[in-house]
Amino acid sequence: MDATSVRAAGSTALLTDRYELTMLQAALRSGAAHRRSVFEVFTRRLPGGRRYGVMAGTGRVLDAVEDFRFGTAQLDWLSDQGVVEDDTLRFLADYRFRGDIHGYPEGEVYFPGSPVLTVEGSFAEAVILETVILSILNYDSAIAAAASRMTAAAGGRPVIEMGARRAHEQAAVAAARAAYIAGFAATSDLEAGFTHGIPTTGTSAHAFTLVHNSERDAFQAQIASMGKGTTLLVDTFDLHEAVRTAVEVAGPELGAVRIDSGDLTLLAHRVRRQLDELGAEQTRIIVTSDLDEYAIAALAAAPVDGYGVGTSLVTGSGHPTCAMVYKLVARAETPDGPLVPVAKRAAGGKTSIGGRKWAARRPDAEGVAEAEVIGTGPVPDELRSHLMQVPLVLAGETVGREPLTAARDRHVRARAALPLSATQLSKGDPVIPTELID
Amino acid sequence: MDATSVRAAGSTALLTDRYELTMLQAALRSGAAHRRSVFEVFTRRLPGGRRYGVMAGTGRVLDAVEDFRFGTAQLDWLSDQGVVEDDTLRFLADYRFRGDIHGYPEGEVYFPGSPVLTVEGSFAEAVILETVILSILNYDSAIAAAASRMTAAAGGRPVIEMGARRAHEQAAVAAARAAYIAGFAATSDLEAGFTHGIPTTGTSAHAFTLVHNSERDAFQAQIASMGKGTTLLVDTFDLHEAVRTAVEVAGPELGAVRIDSGDLTLLAHRVRRQLDELGAEQTRIIVTSDLDEYAIAALAAAPVDGYGVGTSLVTGSGHPTCAMVYKLVARAETPDGPLVPVAKRAAGGKTSIGGRKWAARRPDAEGVAEAEVIGTGPVPDELRSHLMQVPLVLAGETVGREPLTAARDRHVRARAALPLSATQLSKGDPVIPTELID
Repeated sequence: MDATSVRAAGSTALLTDRYELTMLQAALRSGAAHRRSVFEVFTRRLPGGRRYGVMAGTGRVLDAVEDFRFGTAQLDWLSDQGVVEDDTLRFLADYRFRGDIHGYPEGEVYFPGSPVLTVEGSFAEAVILETVILSILNYDSAIAAAASRMTAAAGGRPVIEMGARRAHEQAAVAAARAAYIAGFAATSDLEAGFTHGIPTTGTSAHAFTLVHNSERDAFQAQIASMGKGTTLLVDTFDLHEAVRTAVEVAGPELGAVRIDSGDLTLLAHRVRRQLDELGAEQTRIIVTSDLDEYAIAALAAAPVDGYGVGTSLVTGSGHPTCAMVYKLVARAETPDGPLVPVAKRAAGGKTSIGGRKWAARRPDAEGVAEAEVIGTGPVPDELRSHLMQVPLVLAGETVGREPLTAARDRHVRARAALPLSATQLSKGDPVIPTELID
Repeated sequence: MDATSVRAAGSTALLTDRYELTMLQAALRSGAAHRRSVFEVFTRRLPGGRRYGVMAGTGRVLDAVEDFRFGTAQLDWLSDQGVVEDDTLRFLADYRFRGDIHGYPEGEVYFPGSPVLTVEGSFAEAVILETVILSILNYDSAIAAAASRMTAAAGGRPVIEMGARRAHEQAAVAAARAAYIAGFAATSDLEAGFTHGIPTTGTSAHAFTLVHNSERDAFQAQIASMGKGTTLLVDTFDLHEAVRTAVEVAGPELGAVRIDSGDLTLLAHRVRRQLDELGAEQTRIIVTSDLDEYAIAALAAAPVDGYGVGTSLVTGSGHPTCAMVYKLVARAETPDGPLVPVAKRAAGGKTSIGGRKWAARRPDAEGVAEAEVIGTGPVPDELRSHLMQVPLVLAGETVGREPLTAARDRHVRARAALPLSATQLSKGDPVIPTELID
């Protein structure tokens, strides 16, 4: 079986760092493999002075955990390479996750220390999920965080994801999904539409104009194919000549023009005036040229009807990963014994807090979030209705699946419940503090 | 057929921006679809003051072009969504690329304007490959460029890729591949070993120590499983106590210790002295804590035997994409007519140079590269033996496949043939200029 047919089988089992399996083998021998264990995913800080993080990827984690199965091809390869020995291979052959996973639902916001995912099971079954869970959450949440800043900056104007060409081809699909959760209206990526049901959009590039003998020929061809409601790209040669030609060819019913270079604020004003003078008052202006949340904010007063964002979206606008870690916080000393908190405590900064944590978002009198409260003891009564985690997997059964639109709606609500300064673009502290009690 | 079974079939056809297909449809109607066309992949600048770029992903592009086929599931979805109409669906059903692709081979270095990939065929068959080709080259080359700086900074010391958890799970596999091309010794990512045959490595994490009742128990368990040649992680509690315990448990045959936090220069010196005093002179020291090329360079004088690099590798050390574009540079006005150069020429900066280009790297008298020479006319005789492009696909047949080790060897040679200042880490201009002739 080659790699393609293994991916065919949908296995995520080798999306794993080798040390997970060597730890597993050593723990199977020492007996520690069977100790009940709690791993938590959290981040020590938000990247780049951001005010909040955005949880994304949870739905993909649920798929990856279900597909975490070792087939013959993988087991044979692990054996051939001497990664692990026969007793461990037998464990892997039978592996499926039978524990519990709780976590922040997708679209929710999070802060430093928030236990965004908690994985409970035997050490053996939980430790080997580390890499694939972190891969998914670290990328998807990084994209969602950037996307949320962009949709906030855009106000009510639609933002379209068009970054596929600037990211690994499968990462791009995940990026489109994360952006949609954080409020993007659509994506250019057909696979994201096919796999996740996200609306797709797209009309034409400069190559389409250049392959024709003239811009007029190209516009006529596009309108013949897609109708007058299409978006014509008007910056291949001379912008204002193109706008004039576009309206001549399509009439005032022209759907939109797209500007992909130059000083967008200036050009948007000029093109708007020109379109209005030509009677195309309803024709929209779409801008797409290395936009990020700052550029979008700067265009707030310009007559722009929509934004297309590529590079900065799929690279997390300067922060393409979000430093989530997967840490053992408690374990029993026997398979069914009581949980004992554990934590790394070396000098050098990377310490953790032991114990399985709950989290609640405490609102003030107006219902605005005022603190992320985290604890390891009993939950105070007044916080019981504000707990953040939901069940995702119980005794190996997935219970937390939901449509992407539910995550999208949740993000709108979660962001709206933060203090107003949450959507400030300038660098600063998290918009609410994380309080650790008991 | 659901998305999983489509990926099973190995189709890359929907890793495509919607506008490629709407352009295709309009061009089929206008007749321009059948015009012979040349698209070039190049970059206008190197990111972040880097001195050279590193070509990576070519082998994956060859796979993706072969797998660019539309199956029933994809065609039905495109039809249901109204992306394109029946005539276009018929074209896509029969699609396979039958043109030519030439390009810089993997591991080669490149500069602004280098035509790193040239795709020739009908407009229709070439335009729709844009997105997937750029996705692959933009990510893989970004990672390879960062990786090359890290291996240069490490001198002869091995550098291990361990960034899977900080990138999209499939991007991580491509990152391990790109890093290997640029000289990394191994990866932690099992899927990268399985799919691409890259050496894998890994031993244990802090969780392994914490799940046991004591550090000593953990070390004993690891050695019982993996032998004394293993690498013990010594910074869970007290570093020097851990080193002492490690040597007590393993004896002087202990393979290595790993330090994952703290002031690595200081700690490496202390741990080296301690190991030597304990008689473990052969025990190596591996460091892994948010390293990048600058941190590696700063550790050059420290007694370190190997580096593990995660986040900064898989995120391109600040530049997770490399701004490659796919531009129509020439096309015929009839299917078999002569090629006519074309180029965007709007104000605003993003202009291109028309015409199909060759490229050569001109050496000086000592054989050191002195310029990247690019032209659209005849190749000067003295440059004929220095041409950069190689055939990759001819009349739809892949001819450019090679083992990954060939790309890895090529990178060593290509980097060594650059002026010495190429591996300077400080920001600056490309190490050789790009000259455009005729």
